[in-house]
Amino acid sequence: MKVVFLGTGGSWPTKYRNVMSVALQFKSEVILFDCGEGTQRQMTYTNISFMKIKRIFITHFHADHFLGIPGLLQTMNLNDREEELHIYGPKGTIDLVKSLLSLGYFKPNFRIYAHDLQPDELVRGDGYTVKAVRVCHNVPAYGYVFQEDERPGKFNKARALELGIPEGPLFGRLQRGQSIDIDGRIISPEMVLGPPRKGIKITYSGDTAPCESFLKASEDADLIIHEATFTEEMMEKAGKFGHSTAKGAAELARSAKALKLALVHLSPRYERPEPIIKEAKEVFENVIVPEDLEEIEVKHRD
Amino acid sequence: MKVVFLGTGGSWPTKYRNVMSVALQFKSEVILFDCGEGTQRQMTYTNISFMKIKRIFITHFHADHFLGIPGLLQTMNLNDREEELHIYGPKGTIDLVKSLLSLGYFKPNFRIYAHDLQPDELVRGDGYTVKAVRVCHNVPAYGYVFQEDERPGKFNKARALELGIPEGPLFGRLQRGQSIDIDGRIISPEMVLGPPRKGIKITYSGDTAPCESFLKASEDADLIIHEATFTEEMMEKAGKFGHSTAKGAAELARSAKALKLALVHLSPRYERPEPIIKEAKEVFENVIVPEDLEEIEVKHRD
Repeated sequence: MKVVFLGTGGSWPTKYRNVMSVALQFKSEVILFDCGEGTQRQMTYTNISFMKIKRIFITHFHADHFLGIPGLLQTMNLNDREEELHIYGPKGTIDLVKSLLSLGYFKPNFRIYAHDLQPDELVRGDGYTVKAVRVCHNVPAYGYVFQEDERPGKFNKARALELGIPEGPLFGRLQRGQSIDIDGRIISPEMVLGPPRKGIKITYSGDTAPCESFLKASEDADLIIHEATFTEEMMEKAGKFGHSTAKGAAELARSAKALKLALVHLSPRYERPEPIIKEAKEVFENVIVPEDLEEIEVKHRD
Repeated sequence: MKVVFLGTGGSWPTKYRNVMSVALQFKSEVILFDCGEGTQRQMTYTNISFMKIKRIFITHFHADHFLGIPGLLQTMNLNDREEELHIYGPKGTIDLVKSLLSLGYFKPNFRIYAHDLQPDELVRGDGYTVKAVRVCHNVPAYGYVFQEDERPGKFNKARALELGIPEGPLFGRLQRGQSIDIDGRIISPEMVLGPPRKGIKITYSGDTAPCESFLKASEDADLIIHEATFTEEMMEKAGKFGHSTAKGAAELARSAKALKLALVHLSPRYERPEPIIKEAKEVFENVIVPEDLEEIEVKHRD
């Protein structure tokens, strides 16, 4: 699956970085995490289609994380969207979306459902779940865990042939989890499939200080997308406002035994990402600080 | 004075054009006409400072004309703005601004005054006025007339010397409109100054079909900034939604005997401005279709 960093800056947009939004492209569906002002325009520079967005997860109600929603909804509407859209976030999301929909003249022709998520609530999608996790910011805020569903185990072809199953369409039925009948013998999928394989796990922190609950939720993730608003020299400010330093985020990724870490939400004070990368790399090697519009592939481990 | 076209597209942002906002830089003050989503970011690519914005004039409450306001206000606040800000628009502006200020967690530390303008109401600024003019859109909408104050007439040096005024500081006092006393004779400014000279006049249409009231308000303007959402082949759609074609806008500029015409609010269907320019030029020679971030100087005629 593909992760597109639409906006990677914190607080307010600069020449270099727009405010937060990260898109996951999973099968034909797009999931947005946060949607800062200008997100719809950022999308025009990528091959993410805003019409494919099915769910938007907002981490908290600071402006740089949600002000792109009303414009995006209106553009969807002007482009004749019919498919429903879901917007999730902490308590207050339903009220916020109601306010956003009442700005100016706007009457969407498609259904928009807003959801106030409970901590640890699970949203079930087509082939994945997204879980809301309380994080440690200066206002109520969630991080999110995207978890692809388990995939069937590997097909053991040698074992299948041993069992006398002829190569051909019956293999496919077993791989899809259906039992088959060979001359009165019932062959069930688990007889020829290895153990189920884990799906991809990606976690997104939103704004937070390094946070125990998010660390736990991020264990063994394929990718942690974590805010790193500052470097250590701004540690005091980071603490005061509930943000992380590059080092703090890297330590969390190391403790979580994640495969990869992407740092986002850089303060406007950083024109270049080098200080953030350098600090993080000392703690956790497999780290990137994506530029706006950068895309990465996240692959299955097996 | 300087006009900066921050966003020149209509309806929704594209790769090529952001949604509407035009900045006038007059002396040390910035005046915004409309403020679509992403306007604050557009400003980061220019040398317009968002901290210098004193007044924002909104033409109407379609999203592509005002959704940039809340983010801009929040960024001003995060940058410790103290100076008050005024936001003007049609009836409903006070309510709209109230809604925009109540989104998420936001408490500005500077004063924001919203104003519902009456048709033809005049806003007085430092050295200029801005007048609201009803235009012809499918919702209540204003165009605006920026009018620099009259400037004193040209100083007639020969006449001053004839009157026995010695060259030096007395000239300056007369030029600034003060009377002086030469050996008991009172010399008043009008004795040595030509007729007052007109200030710069710039009109901004917002969204509108070619409209009699805006034509009248634009007479003899130095610059008309007019929407041209479509070309003539889309005339029917333009009419239906209260928009102008390039030809319609050019005809208005010709009738108004304006010096120059800038066409904005191009529909997303136009990736390139050529069809718009071509159509307008057949009617009105001194026309431009500015790109986003383009700046032009508007000079005094005398």
